[in-house]
Amino acid sequence: AQNNNNAPSSYDVHDIKITGYLQTQFQTAQSPGITSFSGGDFAENSDNRFIIRRGRLKIDRVDKYSSIVFQLDGTQNGVQLVDAFIQLREPKLKSLSLTAGLFNRPFGYNIVYSSGYRDFPERPRVFQTIMPRERDIGVLAGYRPHNQLKFLTLEFAVINGSGLTSKDFDSKKDFIGNIAIKFDSLAHNKFHLNFGGSVYKGTLKNDTKTYYSSTPGGFIENTNDDIKGKFLERNYYGANLQLAYDNTFGATTFKTEYVAGKQPGVASSNSLKGPYASQSFSVQPLTNLYARNFSGYYFWVTQQIFKTKLEALISYDVYDPNTAVKGSDIGKANTFTTAGDVKYSTLGYGLTYQVNDRIKFTVYNENVKNESTLLKEVPNDIRDDVFTARLQYRW
Amino acid sequence: AQNNNNAPSSYDVHDIKITGYLQTQFQTAQSPGITSFSGGDFAENSDNRFIIRRGRLKIDRVDKYSSIVFQLDGTQNGVQLVDAFIQLREPKLKSLSLTAGLFNRPFGYNIVYSSGYRDFPERPRVFQTIMPRERDIGVLAGYRPHNQLKFLTLEFAVINGSGLTSKDFDSKKDFIGNIAIKFDSLAHNKFHLNFGGSVYKGTLKNDTKTYYSSTPGGFIENTNDDIKGKFLERNYYGANLQLAYDNTFGATTFKTEYVAGKQPGVASSNSLKGPYASQSFSVQPLTNLYARNFSGYYFWVTQQIFKTKLEALISYDVYDPNTAVKGSDIGKANTFTTAGDVKYSTLGYGLTYQVNDRIKFTVYNENVKNESTLLKEVPNDIRDDVFTARLQYRW
Amino acid sequence: AQNNNNAPSSYDVHDIKITGYLQTQFQTAQSPGITSFSGGDFAENSDNRFIIRRGRLKIDRVDKYSSIVFQLDGTQNGVQLVDAFIQLREPKLKSLSLTAGLFNRPFGYNIVYSSGYRDFPERPRVFQTIMPRERDIGVLAGYRPHNQLKFLTLEFAVINGSGLTSKDFDSKKDFIGNIAIKFDSLAHNKFHLNFGGSVYKGTLKNDTKTYYSSTPGGFIENTNDDIKGKFLERNYYGANLQLAYDNTFGATTFKTEYVAGKQPGVASSNSLKGPYASQSFSVQPLTNLYARNFSGYYFWVTQQIFKTKLEALISYDVYDPNTAVKGSDIGKANTFTTAGDVKYSTLGYGLTYQVNDRIKFTVYNENVKNESTLLKEVPNDIRDDVFTARLQYRW
Repeated sequence: AQNNNNAPSSYDVHDIKITGYLQTQFQTAQSPGITSFSGGDFAENSDNRFIIRRGRLKIDRVDKYSSIVFQLDGTQNGVQLVDAFIQLREPKLKSLSLTAGLFNRPFGYNIVYSSGYRDFPERPRVFQTIMPRERDIGVLAGYRPHNQLKFLTLEFAVINGSGLTSKDFDSKKDFIGNIAIKFDSLAHNKFHLNFGGSVYKGTLKNDTKTYYSSTPGGFIENTNDDIKGKFLERNYYGANLQLAYDNTFGATTFKTEYVAGKQPGVASSNSLKGPYASQSFSVQPLTNLYARNFSGYYFWVTQQIFKTKLEALISYDVYDPNTAVKGSDIGKANTFTTAGDVKYSTLGYGLTYQVNDRIKFTVYNENVKNESTLLKEVPNDIRDDVFTARLQYRW
Repeated sequence: AQNNNNAPSSYDVHDIKITGYLQTQFQTAQSPGITSFSGGDFAENSDNRFIIRRGRLKIDRVDKYSSIVFQLDGTQNGVQLVDAFIQLREPKLKSLSLTAGLFNRPFGYNIVYSSGYRDFPERPRVFQTIMPRERDIGVLAGYRPHNQLKFLTLEFAVINGSGLTSKDFDSKKDFIGNIAIKFDSLAHNKFHLNFGGSVYKGTLKNDTKTYYSSTPGGFIENTNDDIKGKFLERNYYGANLQLAYDNTFGATTFKTEYVAGKQPGVASSNSLKGPYASQSFSVQPLTNLYARNFSGYYFWVTQQIFKTKLEALISYDVYDPNTAVKGSDIGKANTFTTAGDVKYSTLGYGLTYQVNDRIKFTVYNENVKNESTLLKEVPNDIRDDVFTARLQYRW
Repeated sequence: AQNNNNAPSSYDVHDIKITGYLQTQFQTAQSPGITSFSGGDFAENSDNRFIIRRGRLKIDRVDKYSSIVFQLDGTQNGVQLVDAFIQLREPKLKSLSLTAGLFNRPFGYNIVYSSGYRDFPERPRVFQTIMPRERDIGVLAGYRPHNQLKFLTLEFAVINGSGLTSKDFDSKKDFIGNIAIKFDSLAHNKFHLNFGGSVYKGTLKNDTKTYYSSTPGGFIENTNDDIKGKFLERNYYGANLQLAYDNTFGATTFKTEYVAGKQPGVASSNSLKGPYASQSFSVQPLTNLYARNFSGYYFWVTQQIFKTKLEALISYDVYDPNTAVKGSDIGKANTFTTAGDVKYSTLGYGLTYQVNDRIKFTVYNENVKNESTLLKEVPNDIRDDVFTARLQYRW
């Protein structure tokens, strides 16, 4: 499918084909210099900006048994390789495939869904935290039967675990298992039901003699010579569901995904803002690790309006980096809690106007709330709402 | 037009088209390690060099009402996104257009004229100083009537003001207004007359409690708690004229442009050479600002020789970063003047041989003069002349 | 030829053509954090990794008398320009050609041979040391007669000498002369014989008042005010031979190349590992130079197995950065020798399976040995063997 990032622009046999999309946007923030998951942090003195959010140039080629995808991303921040994978398909049944290279981690629904086709401007905070920039390098085996089980997709991947811009920084590989079930044609093709589940099993090495383990209400400090080199678990479990209903008012979709598990991180500090303390690493962290249990989820609803090109968007998403502490414990003496343990929830709402296949205009507002803590540096509600007006062209 | 950077390779409807150009050159400098506006500073021990000056890869697509341009620049310095904009045209009259993304600032004639079509190797010093790398991110409205006013182009843009490689670093946007008049077919198509005017209105934030305001012969120091956060004006006014005459000896062109206004900068220092003290910023400057009144202009003459593929080039350009001080005041006690206030003028002359549509060979010499000052570190005439031999291929 | 990096994808006249190749691989190292010439050093805590080794996107265009090549390389390390050259051919005999821009240094056989066609995963250590990343910027004149001397190729180049990512950092240019002789159709087209020789003449500037000259068993320190600015010689001499024999068992190839000369380097230090102390520079080295005499060579044998798509690979290569000292002298008092003088030899062996024209799978093991020294920080045999499993797709 076109909206699947781990695929060429089409599986029809073709020689070199060039596609891509450009997203340019104007944004305002509630206050200057905020941390943001809507296109990156604002500069210290800036509460509004024009940016190139994504500028994608994708080259692909497909023949009967194999395909190649090579994609660049160019923005004001530079030019980067974002996809580079070879796919081999088992010649007879084509139900087995092998993907090798740099690809989107096949975990759940949201990560692999293309930003050029997504209704909402950005992926939810939880996914930007546990799998920043979605990609990793490794191999992926896929199984999609062509018989009566054709509603099924099974995927298994082995990856570095260190992301898009990194050779691996430790020796242990990470593993992903994914299952997706697709019923696309229920109720005379009017009702579509998809759901799935996913598992991520990885580790992160502690490079010091101290790490902090989670306990109700905070952390316990563990110091020992053996701890230098200890691998902490990085395990995620996810479930997802997508419903679509083509009704007389216009198409309605509902999408949700829940993910929870263990995420090793660090403490927030002067040089590392709270929301980045639990973000996955592309280099070996040099400070003490904090083993946290996290959870996150989102609800996405879209409603086409009177069968027009206009669509209403509503979303709600939550990311709690540390489910063992509530806000009122964060900052309490001897809990070792920091701004890195603060829960955030985001209410988003907006409109898209799909001018034609290529051009889409989106206005979208995000209301970001954080839980109250005892920390002086974390206000009760950080003024970090963001408004985005985006123009997209797909080519 | 092809030579307009804010346009696709052609407005004829087409699917993905790839064009570009490569400029490779050998250069000698009068002395090693000089500051130069002819392809960048020379390395400390180097007075000659081979460089890739520009390596452009442009992908565009045009349909009836919209177009997209995506352009990369690759050189020994890296690969960068240089153009990424979506254009929408008003369907009926097509006289109204909207451009959004990363594009050349529509200020005057020189900035938006493509380096792949320009006769002279580089843009004049004044434009490289006030609009380094020409581009910015924002939106641009254009009006080009299709009736009896078809000689007219009006443009209005809102941009970050922080250039090609930057999200905005302050909250205030900058504005550009531009008018161009084009009479292309006078005297039986032998005489072409174009002229125009432009305005840039912007600001730069002072991040300290001190700034220096301009006064005849130097600067006045202003210190106050209120000054932290003060916005200094960044206002430019420009006028331009282009004449072309197809005569029996060969085509003659004359082009000139004058620009003056207010440019907030900083002082020169050990870590910032004089010519860069008044260059526009891509990040918030952290030191005290200096409010300067500047002016600059150029004259460009080209003469085709006996209707051959050979063309002679002569240019003269001047940039005075501070019109309130003369050279003999620079370095005087208590004037706060520095090498950042020194005027430069450049006499350029050379030849181009246009082998065919794609291949052009240019030899060009630049004689760079600076005004005499009282500063010991600025010689009466810095030995910073540059000779360039360039081969260009357009594809 | 397609396997020549200093050429377009084909010399048949064509408009813009896009080709490229992607190499993705899994590697294990004998110990974490090793220095490696098989895809770069391993991260400190890592002894295995997935990487994108090369991701090439090549755009070229050819007409009767000229051509252009523009090639990007995208990996997890970033996106870089790797080829950008214009070629002009003398219209009549086409035996003379001029190449200008960024191209592979025309020294010997291995440097200019494309990594997309090479049987072995990487170039030998000696070439990665004296010409890291193969390319440089300059001009190259080629002569390939079309008469009875058509087996001959002569090349002469003038280059910066500072590599792919650098404007020149000193004023002196480097020179390359190359001769290649090709007998492709001996013994009823079953036997192919090619050989050649090459010379590199360059210099490196000493930026301090001290440099070390080579003497049997070590270095002599030379200190003098005159030495700041002194140019040390960087001279290479090479000879190469390639044999191919299409026999009933399957094609056999034998390739060898020997290179020796003078390579100015620095000492190894905490911040610069031994193998990089004699690597050519892309910026002016700021520490004392060491003038070394080096030598290096490789033997490459490939054997197609029973006319299948399977091929066996065996290689042996040696690089001795300092032929004037033996291992047992390195680290001796007052010799000024360091880990930068240690000789390395590599035995490589593996298999390739060429699935089709586009897809190739390679497994390859490298057994890297270093000579024994008196240095404590250099073990008798550093545990730096590397195993590589690579999948390549050429498009």
